[in-house]
Amino acid sequence: MPQFLNSQNPGFEADFTHLLGMKREDSADVDAIVAGIIEDVRARGDDALIELTSKFDRLDLTPETLAFSEAEIDAFCAQVTPEDRAALELAAARIRAYHERQTPEDARWTEASGAELGWRWSAVAAAGLYVPGGQASYPSSVLMNAIPAKVAGVGRLVVVCPTPGGAVNPLVVLAAKLSGVDTIYRVGGAQAVAALAYGTQTIAPVDKITGPGNAFVAAAKRRVFGRVGIDMIAGPSEILVIGDGTGDPDWIALDLLSQAEHDQVAQSVLITTSQAEADAVTQAVERHLETLERRDIAGASWRDYGAVIVVGTLEEAATLSNRMAPEHLELCVDDPEALLPQIRHAGAIFLGHWTPEAIGDYVGGPNHVLPTARSARFSSGLSVLDFMKRTTLARMTPDALRAIGPAAERLAISESLQAHGLSVRARLDKLND
Amino acid sequence: MPQFLNSQNPGFEADFTHLLGMKREDSADVDAIVAGIIEDVRARGDDALIELTSKFDRLDLTPETLAFSEAEIDAFCAQVTPEDRAALELAAARIRAYHERQTPEDARWTEASGAELGWRWSAVAAAGLYVPGGQASYPSSVLMNAIPAKVAGVGRLVVVCPTPGGAVNPLVVLAAKLSGVDTIYRVGGAQAVAALAYGTQTIAPVDKITGPGNAFVAAAKRRVFGRVGIDMIAGPSEILVIGDGTGDPDWIALDLLSQAEHDQVAQSVLITTSQAEADAVTQAVERHLETLERRDIAGASWRDYGAVIVVGTLEEAATLSNRMAPEHLELCVDDPEALLPQIRHAGAIFLGHWTPEAIGDYVGGPNHVLPTARSARFSSGLSVLDFMKRTTLARMTPDALRAIGPAAERLAISESLQAHGLSVRARLDKLND
Repeated sequence: MPQFLNSQNPGFEADFTHLLGMKREDSADVDAIVAGIIEDVRARGDDALIELTSKFDRLDLTPETLAFSEAEIDAFCAQVTPEDRAALELAAARIRAYHERQTPEDARWTEASGAELGWRWSAVAAAGLYVPGGQASYPSSVLMNAIPAKVAGVGRLVVVCPTPGGAVNPLVVLAAKLSGVDTIYRVGGAQAVAALAYGTQTIAPVDKITGPGNAFVAAAKRRVFGRVGIDMIAGPSEILVIGDGTGDPDWIALDLLSQAEHDQVAQSVLITTSQAEADAVTQAVERHLETLERRDIAGASWRDYGAVIVVGTLEEAATLSNRMAPEHLELCVDDPEALLPQIRHAGAIFLGHWTPEAIGDYVGGPNHVLPTARSARFSSGLSVLDFMKRTTLARMTPDALRAIGPAAERLAISESLQAHGLSVRARLDKLND
Repeated sequence: MPQFLNSQNPGFEADFTHLLGMKREDSADVDAIVAGIIEDVRARGDDALIELTSKFDRLDLTPETLAFSEAEIDAFCAQVTPEDRAALELAAARIRAYHERQTPEDARWTEASGAELGWRWSAVAAAGLYVPGGQASYPSSVLMNAIPAKVAGVGRLVVVCPTPGGAVNPLVVLAAKLSGVDTIYRVGGAQAVAALAYGTQTIAPVDKITGPGNAFVAAAKRRVFGRVGIDMIAGPSEILVIGDGTGDPDWIALDLLSQAEHDQVAQSVLITTSQAEADAVTQAVERHLETLERRDIAGASWRDYGAVIVVGTLEEAATLSNRMAPEHLELCVDDPEALLPQIRHAGAIFLGHWTPEAIGDYVGGPNHVLPTARSARFSSGLSVLDFMKRTTLARMTPDALRAIGPAAERLAISESLQAHGLSVRARLDKLND
């Protein structure tokens, strides 16, 4: 059974704090194994990558077959049904349109003294996207990672995706093609991350690595961070639904289950001002769990990490939501716009009864790579900015240096950095000649 | 002696690659010690923090004296000379003006179907700034970290700064006060980072930790990453000067030395199209090294990591610069605007002969916390955005769901996520009733 809490009960604060602190990540300690794999790929390049792929994915490759050929890509794309292709194209177009609005502006301005200041954004030169193989090989994740990179203007965009035993998801290949990916390598695990970070004879290194993966992939990303940029380390998915009794319990139940079915350590929480809604949603969840294809996973998630919380007011709901800082937040209330200003921390907000979270997973437009485990307190979902960096610009004139140089010199001296001060003083002396 | 390279020489590519690969970080393995310190502070709170401060900083505190009192802060501020205060105020005003331009825009728009999309930026609720004690206790770094946080709208902003043996830098206290810092705690090291991340009885936890520190601080920041946000892990400072023979060799020498004097593992590099400039700058560096206060540090840096590279053209210089992706880049050339478009990767660019890098350290306006060790390939200097996060917004209407819902349902089915599909289908069925 999920946890049932009521904010009027005396033990509520302790129970809610416990809910917040529940550790859902399985912290398998794979760090030593991953360190060895990375060193091996750094030292032996393609040879190590091919050996490890044979060992872990039961797939024998050569340097020539590391990447899919054009003919192979075309053949996989041809396997996709017209209906699936149309859905993927609609999703790609909407994701692209949303992310194109994120492209940041350069700035440059001139002060009265003639000094010019500003900044300039530019794309990373090369990015690598990790796409899991097997069950969690989601074409939607390819779109969500690759399209922002292309919109940013990334020059070379490659995908690594393990194909255990040679099994390929044609939709993943089509999603990569629709997104403008240059090359798809059929390798995965920590060895693929190492190849992207350090390069091999066949795979040129990249500057940024994004995309979800298992514990080995996450550990490898952490380890190569600094050598290359990485996106966040994604934890298990979460949804919080805030209700006021005006929603359809069946819809809310399905929304909760659409996170629970991802992973048995996913978390689905309902906070509602209505005891009747709490009861009706709980019953609807139980009913759907009888027939849902992934009922074992969704049922375990709901039983172990699910919660239904009854509160007195929507203000209270917003306060609890801000403490949870959920990855996904649905405002299933009559007037979501009135509630919105009270929400301070959330990865993505879905407003009103007609916006199931699943829309955001696929076709809404916003990114579905979002901060988990309360990290929406300080971080954002994936965006075009993750594939760009900002260079600041400054250009002084003699007048500008005359105006602000002496202050720089004084602060340099106060910090005992004499050469800093002298570099300004030498120029000021020239002006006074 | 620094390295002297010439791009016309046959061994150049190997030499330049070696220069790029030089490991300057001392990777003292302090991880186990830091893990123990963090666990101790998590478990025992103030008691551990006070014990560790007594041990490492030879300073006996109580929960009541962890933070500076208002009276203490006023007393330290009163010790600052009017000239130093004026310089700090000028710097603060300029840094604030620059960063205020970085405040990002929210967005919200309505599609033809009535669907609304957008995003909203918001500040992190609480941030903690690490300020080193002793020699590297720089008031300028306080301004560079605290002002962007305040411009972002951070609610609670605290500083931690060790005061070994009770020694306090009054300028650091004044810089914190000028920046709007709420509280200054006189603790440092991994124990201060742990207190910020997990909280103690006296210090409330924060959501984001920024600021430079020694190997213990860096290891602690890495370890609490995920629990809280952190800024980059800063490596030793670097400068690259590109010259075309039109600069004053003395100015360039001082600019190179102003990085070298930071740290014996700092790196200063000149790339010039003029052999005469290469020679004259080298001589000027040697001359200044005879008298510079920090000549031991600057000399070691210049000897071990410095380089002077003569190239045939400025295009070649730009190509090498892009491979280095320097933290600081000075374009000490006759026409810096013409060269600028060729520069793709740099933390900060200083244009023309009148813009010494030291201006950027103090009073230029742009941030001086910048990506080191070639990470300007994929990351940016500190900015207002580091203290904010973006929440995406989506609101569907019945018409919008009718238009794009079926594609979401199809993709959900293709990914074997039935509940995702059902959450859309249940709403579509209602529309078809």
